[in-house]
Amino acid sequence: MSLKLTKKLLQQIKLFIQNKDEESIISLFEEEHHADIAELLDELKFDESIYIIKLLDSEKTSEVLMDLDEDIREKILENLSIKEIAEEIEELDTDDAADIIAELPEERQEKVISQIEDEEHKADIQELLTYAEDSAGSLMAKELIKVNENWKIPKCLKEMRIQASNVTRVHSIYVVDNNDVLKGRLSLKDLLIVSNKAHILDIYIPKVDSVNVNDNVEDVARIMQKYDLEAIPVIDNNQILLGRITIDDIVDVIKEEAEKDYQLAAGIVQDVEADDSIIELTKARLPWLFLGLIGGIGAAGIMGGFDDILKSHTILFYFTPLIAAMAGNIGVQSSAIIVQGLANDDVKGSINSRLIKEMLLATLNGFILALFLLVFIWIWKGDFLIALAISISLVIVIVVAGIIGTFIPLFLDKKGIDPAIATGPFITTSNDIFGILIYFMIAKMILGI
Amino acid sequence: MSLKLTKKLLQQIKLFIQNKDEESIISLFEEEHHADIAELLDELKFDESIYIIKLLDSEKTSEVLMDLDEDIREKILENLSIKEIAEEIEELDTDDAADIIAELPEERQEKVISQIEDEEHKADIQELLTYAEDSAGSLMAKELIKVNENWKIPKCLKEMRIQASNVTRVHSIYVVDNNDVLKGRLSLKDLLIVSNKAHILDIYIPKVDSVNVNDNVEDVARIMQKYDLEAIPVIDNNQILLGRITIDDIVDVIKEEAEKDYQLAAGIVQDVEADDSIIELTKARLPWLFLGLIGGIGAAGIMGGFDDILKSHTILFYFTPLIAAMAGNIGVQSSAIIVQGLANDDVKGSINSRLIKEMLLATLNGFILALFLLVFIWIWKGDFLIALAISISLVIVIVVAGIIGTFIPLFLDKKGIDPAIATGPFITTSNDIFGILIYFMIAKMILGI
Repeated sequence: MSLKLTKKLLQQIKLFIQNKDEESIISLFEEEHHADIAELLDELKFDESIYIIKLLDSEKTSEVLMDLDEDIREKILENLSIKEIAEEIEELDTDDAADIIAELPEERQEKVISQIEDEEHKADIQELLTYAEDSAGSLMAKELIKVNENWKIPKCLKEMRIQASNVTRVHSIYVVDNNDVLKGRLSLKDLLIVSNKAHILDIYIPKVDSVNVNDNVEDVARIMQKYDLEAIPVIDNNQILLGRITIDDIVDVIKEEAEKDYQLAAGIVQDVEADDSIIELTKARLPWLFLGLIGGIGAAGIMGGFDDILKSHTILFYFTPLIAAMAGNIGVQSSAIIVQGLANDDVKGSINSRLIKEMLLATLNGFILALFLLVFIWIWKGDFLIALAISISLVIVIVVAGIIGTFIPLFLDKKGIDPAIATGPFITTSNDIFGILIYFMIAKMILGI
Repeated sequence: MSLKLTKKLLQQIKLFIQNKDEESIISLFEEEHHADIAELLDELKFDESIYIIKLLDSEKTSEVLMDLDEDIREKILENLSIKEIAEEIEELDTDDAADIIAELPEERQEKVISQIEDEEHKADIQELLTYAEDSAGSLMAKELIKVNENWKIPKCLKEMRIQASNVTRVHSIYVVDNNDVLKGRLSLKDLLIVSNKAHILDIYIPKVDSVNVNDNVEDVARIMQKYDLEAIPVIDNNQILLGRITIDDIVDVIKEEAEKDYQLAAGIVQDVEADDSIIELTKARLPWLFLGLIGGIGAAGIMGGFDDILKSHTILFYFTPLIAAMAGNIGVQSSAIIVQGLANDDVKGSINSRLIKEMLLATLNGFILALFLLVFIWIWKGDFLIALAISISLVIVIVVAGIIGTFIPLFLDKKGIDPAIATGPFITTSNDIFGILIYFMIAKMILGI
């Protein structure tokens, strides 16, 4: 936290680079955390970043690479040779190494892998690359501390010291049998308290949470959160210990998941950032806008179909944006609550009881809002019947919108589709059309036209 | 994970409770994780939960209480005596204990505190209760392992063993001087590797990240994420070590923050869950709906002001829901991207450059959408001029909506207001009104009416 990102510092670094003052740059970055260096490189011009990456040693830059924005990392990797990339890979933990390699174009992937000198590291990375994208396997690292249940304490301590030098954080010490089947764990705290004379078989805790290598990462995140775990071992179908997942990666999963849902609710279909290119942002935003356009055209068509009452009841047309907005807002609210409840696994009871509850809720909200609208229109236009017709229509539109907003995410979830896609523009658009149609039909009925 | 929540299990437990079969209940829950027990109690009737809480010992139930839904916990605490609550508090870590006490009605708080027998625990909890709600102090626990820089290793190890028995997870060992000023840390990994003969002064790492007790929890979350920390020490203005924050609490902060933003974007003003009461849900949903109603009335008023062209250009009125929807969608998209960028601290450059970028983006999107609309209306109505007027208006509405959606969150952020409140209904409603107004004005201008 010591490297404060200021304009002055940036200027200074740019000057160092211009003067090719390598010594000053190296000494400046020597003591700095890789996350701080990455933040700084994000601010520099591209060839300046490359210059610094090539200058610093790969022990430092490998971690910096992991912290960079994905698009900047991609460009930097394009400018590093196969050998340089392989050197970075050697320094990284297996999970990060596999992530970097997976980002490379396919023809470079194999070349980089073949250049990795540490055979065990190479094999571990190759294994990790085989797991599906959202599986526990894709998130786990091979680095962990494991001891055999048949070892005695001195041997165990010796092995642990060797293994610990490879592992960034120790967390738990896993206990396996001769076939690498996960049996339990030794807690670090126990290790501080226990006497040196004990045997592993006698002291290990046989109860240990684990996940299967094919489990979905969101399920892993849920389990680690529920049980407040900071690391969880990953096993295969035969209970063989394959690796472990640490909480820092889970924090990233949780954040990404939340951002994806937020963007979906806001009508953005792919992961973008404010700094992405206009083309990138257009690709993410245009699809839902287009859906909104179709919805609007549908609404226009419906209004065209009611043009026989346009002259006699013009005021009905003035309130179509209000009807569309209310139907959309209600739909988004009710779907958001269901989507969030589903994500947190706390939507209980049947779909029917949900729908009845939303119906009551929408009716209550609808009545309060409609009463206000009734008084307003009555005063404005002095026509009680038309005020009543619009207000009653509003209540019915709100109830239907609430039911649609509740039903669609529950339905998608039952079908195994991510309900988050149902929020935002999708619900808004369908509710716009239904809302306006229902509104005119009910109003016509009440007004007897 | 062994206690699978099934209907059969629930039936069985309900039967045990009916028969007052205490032994079966105790043995059933004996080996279970508190998070699993809490999940189960959430499903039981209220007096059944109370029965179980009173039956199990407080070492177990204190953790269960922490995992329960807040509203259920509140009701259970109401049914426990001061003494029973104090017993639960004794078992909890200081941070959880303070959270529980803070949830009690004020008159019970002091009574419970006075019943805590462990004087140190009591003083720690009282200290924690003094910190502001969103400060690092409110999140930290007093439990940690600290060693004095002047100690020798054997004394250090002995003290650590004593302290470790009080701490759920060790993480780091903090090094302080005689005045409790934070000097650095001993890593657990080093401890596994280092020889027993070293002195603390010689081996401690002087560099340690820390946060001030008054820092905002969101800043703490950002720092811990950035540096991949699993625990961070909390100090006061004199660098004195006060406590520490662990990653599991930060995970909760990140999730809550994401949920709050998601709900705000969906027009829900307070933290609610699908299972909350209809009154609770109405209170959370009605305010934004009311804002939407006002917006809709404003739109109706604007349309009423253009009624001179209603007869000659009816079709303009058909497209008002489309205009409102597009203005709203664009506004929500652009504000969501800015809000997320601000939260992740990666919105760089000036407000002006942001606005110019959004203007270009909106123009591009607007042209694509307007071209489609132009062709559609031309074919539908056979009137090129009116199709052109509506399409050009759409482009301008989209650009203005994008600028409003970009500007408002940036402006709020500059003023120190959470920009997340600007997304969703707020932007939608203001864009509805502006959109329809601009639409009619531009269309009139183009059509020369």
